[in-house]
Amino acid sequence: MFHLNSNYQKLDNPYFFTEVAKRTAEYSQRNPGQKVIRFGVGDVTRPLTKTVVKALHDAVDEMAEEKSFHGYTQPQGYEFLRDAIASFEYKRRGCPIGADEIFISDGAKTDSGNIQEIFAKDNRIALCDPGYPVYLDSNLMTGKCERDDVIYLPCTEANGFIPELPKQTPDLIYLCFPNNPTGAAITKQALQEWVDYANKNGTVIIFDAAYEAYITEDEIPHTIYECPGAENCAIEIRSFSKNAGFTGVRLGYTVIPKAIRAENGISAHNLWYRRIGTRFNGAGYIQQRAGAAVYTEAGQQEIRELVSYYQENAKMIREGLQEAGYTVYGGVNAPYLWLKAKEKMTSWEFFDHLLNRAAIVTTPGSGFGPSGESFLRLTAFGSHENTKEAVEKVKSIS
Amino acid sequence: MFHLNSNYQKLDNPYFFTEVAKRTAEYSQRNPGQKVIRFGVGDVTRPLTKTVVKALHDAVDEMAEEKSFHGYTQPQGYEFLRDAIASFEYKRRGCPIGADEIFISDGAKTDSGNIQEIFAKDNRIALCDPGYPVYLDSNLMTGKCERDDVIYLPCTEANGFIPELPKQTPDLIYLCFPNNPTGAAITKQALQEWVDYANKNGTVIIFDAAYEAYITEDEIPHTIYECPGAENCAIEIRSFSKNAGFTGVRLGYTVIPKAIRAENGISAHNLWYRRIGTRFNGAGYIQQRAGAAVYTEAGQQEIRELVSYYQENAKMIREGLQEAGYTVYGGVNAPYLWLKAKEKMTSWEFFDHLLNRAAIVTTPGSGFGPSGESFLRLTAFGSHENTKEAVEKVKSIS
Repeated sequence: MFHLNSNYQKLDNPYFFTEVAKRTAEYSQRNPGQKVIRFGVGDVTRPLTKTVVKALHDAVDEMAEEKSFHGYTQPQGYEFLRDAIASFEYKRRGCPIGADEIFISDGAKTDSGNIQEIFAKDNRIALCDPGYPVYLDSNLMTGKCERDDVIYLPCTEANGFIPELPKQTPDLIYLCFPNNPTGAAITKQALQEWVDYANKNGTVIIFDAAYEAYITEDEIPHTIYECPGAENCAIEIRSFSKNAGFTGVRLGYTVIPKAIRAENGISAHNLWYRRIGTRFNGAGYIQQRAGAAVYTEAGQQEIRELVSYYQENAKMIREGLQEAGYTVYGGVNAPYLWLKAKEKMTSWEFFDHLLNRAAIVTTPGSGFGPSGESFLRLTAFGSHENTKEAVEKVKSIS
Repeated sequence: MFHLNSNYQKLDNPYFFTEVAKRTAEYSQRNPGQKVIRFGVGDVTRPLTKTVVKALHDAVDEMAEEKSFHGYTQPQGYEFLRDAIASFEYKRRGCPIGADEIFISDGAKTDSGNIQEIFAKDNRIALCDPGYPVYLDSNLMTGKCERDDVIYLPCTEANGFIPELPKQTPDLIYLCFPNNPTGAAITKQALQEWVDYANKNGTVIIFDAAYEAYITEDEIPHTIYECPGAENCAIEIRSFSKNAGFTGVRLGYTVIPKAIRAENGISAHNLWYRRIGTRFNGAGYIQQRAGAAVYTEAGQQEIRELVSYYQENAKMIREGLQEAGYTVYGGVNAPYLWLKAKEKMTSWEFFDHLLNRAAIVTTPGSGFGPSGESFLRLTAFGSHENTKEAVEKVKSIS
């Protein structure tokens, strides 16, 4: 008789986004016709930009003709896209990353969940608390770790949501900056400390930089490879979802420098190359052309406007809720805001309060880890109109 | 110090398709200007069909407008596509599969490699020899099995490339019909025996039906769910690559009936749902619209023509090589042909013979398992012109 993977029983049940959906549906049933504004899941709402749309149409036309048809790609992704990324994201910033160290994928979530595959079971893992649930869950599901063996790095008001170096030495550290869920950003100087720590201890940093486009302050690095030495210890995961609105297109990439080697000399890069060669057939040609369009001059201008639109929302939420007497973090270098409950409320109580009183859906901070308790995550990805309306509603009940 | 996953060292090194590419490149270097015809990797060469191209353009236009923009999908895939699949592939054939049992993905290769995730480590796995390397490799890489623990099911000339029921009882069986690489197809009656065996023994069948569109004979089932009881024991993996030419678009799906439950009552369907919810963000909206277009009347007419084109190639190869005195299997219900060496040659010797004498690239059968020795896999996915030219060349050296 076959057996299923019992590690899945170690996951929280149900997944907390499911619980959010359930409570929202119940509210709508109790209040038919009431408009509900969603600050919850981090999905974008603006359409794709002109240059991207043109690139998509052009690529579809290529696929319609025998002479320009594209079948299987190399699983690593097309050179035209990897070259554009290497040049724009890395060479331009003086980072020693080559196009052959970049792997194109169908999105940062897939890469975040899959990256554990190339690591052994006996690594000690460190995770920010609160943090994106995929890091822990993907390691639990594959039996790579037990919940109690993880080194949690509390990110709290006291440390400005930037964790301290751990006392116990981890083998793998997941870091995400600008951060989901807190919206905190890390300075180059602070990140350099992590890079130096990792190189000293033989630790790999998995750096999730999906929200890089939202950085506004000069001292915040756009990639971990701005820190010298990161090319020896850091894997970086990037996305087209939040800069170019590709949540429904599906495109991302992961950088694994060739210099990251285990004690036995085997390179992490080669293992990932083998993994995707065996278990992935590459991102679609059409999406990869759309990705390349993002790196044209017009494409860059358009995504700056797109990001600005959401940044205005972030500012509106931040300032509006501060006026309503709330303590709000994030939203300056990130599309996320981290809202503290005024009274002694749990995250779920605070969630219910805003849902029932103001018809606003948020994400309970406790779903991201125990240090998220009493906070809510808000996202800046709505329309100006909805964002304004929601802020006014919160003000009116405060 | 971090450790990498040592299971990767259990894989064949290098991956045999890499060796094929290397020998081909060396040949071209020695013979500059010589046209090389590729019968190797199973990539299609015809462009996307009209109806699919229109659906892609329409979907791109939707993504360009705020009111019709699509962001994150449900990881399981859009209902419009799952409904079309359920109705066309299953209800029409009387199979008890609902749209809610279908999971849309970025391709059958990903699903073939990922499906082992939901199973425990202590399952005994049975694999056809020869077979698609992803089944074994994905299980080796995740430490789900050791090479020596696998129950191999020889598929040979003696059994018409249809394996016998194993003497030892496996917990998981990977079957692929129409078969890659042999091109053999299984009758409904023979497949029913496997389904009954699986239900009797508590075994799950992972049924790869990626080449279903090439079936021409009445007694060959188009899906395993044509066999009563399969809904209690079989997972089916399907593709849009070989029927609609989506190798560069990336779209596939997997059916996991809700009735497949382990001894403790947990359903395989729920585990997969949780897996993709955590580690996948769905296939892109644009591709899913293209997939739905395949199920329109015009779309169906077009893919029948597309498949016929390749089927003509298969016939041309089969008959031409038989005329040249070769024994050839497959190509009747499959896009693959299984060519036996005339003399006592290994697959690699036979590969080199055809490359050096006729400038034709094939795939060595031994790369698919020891029972593939002395065979080559040929694919029917080229142009008529190249296929004809290649067949003439083989004839001329025979």
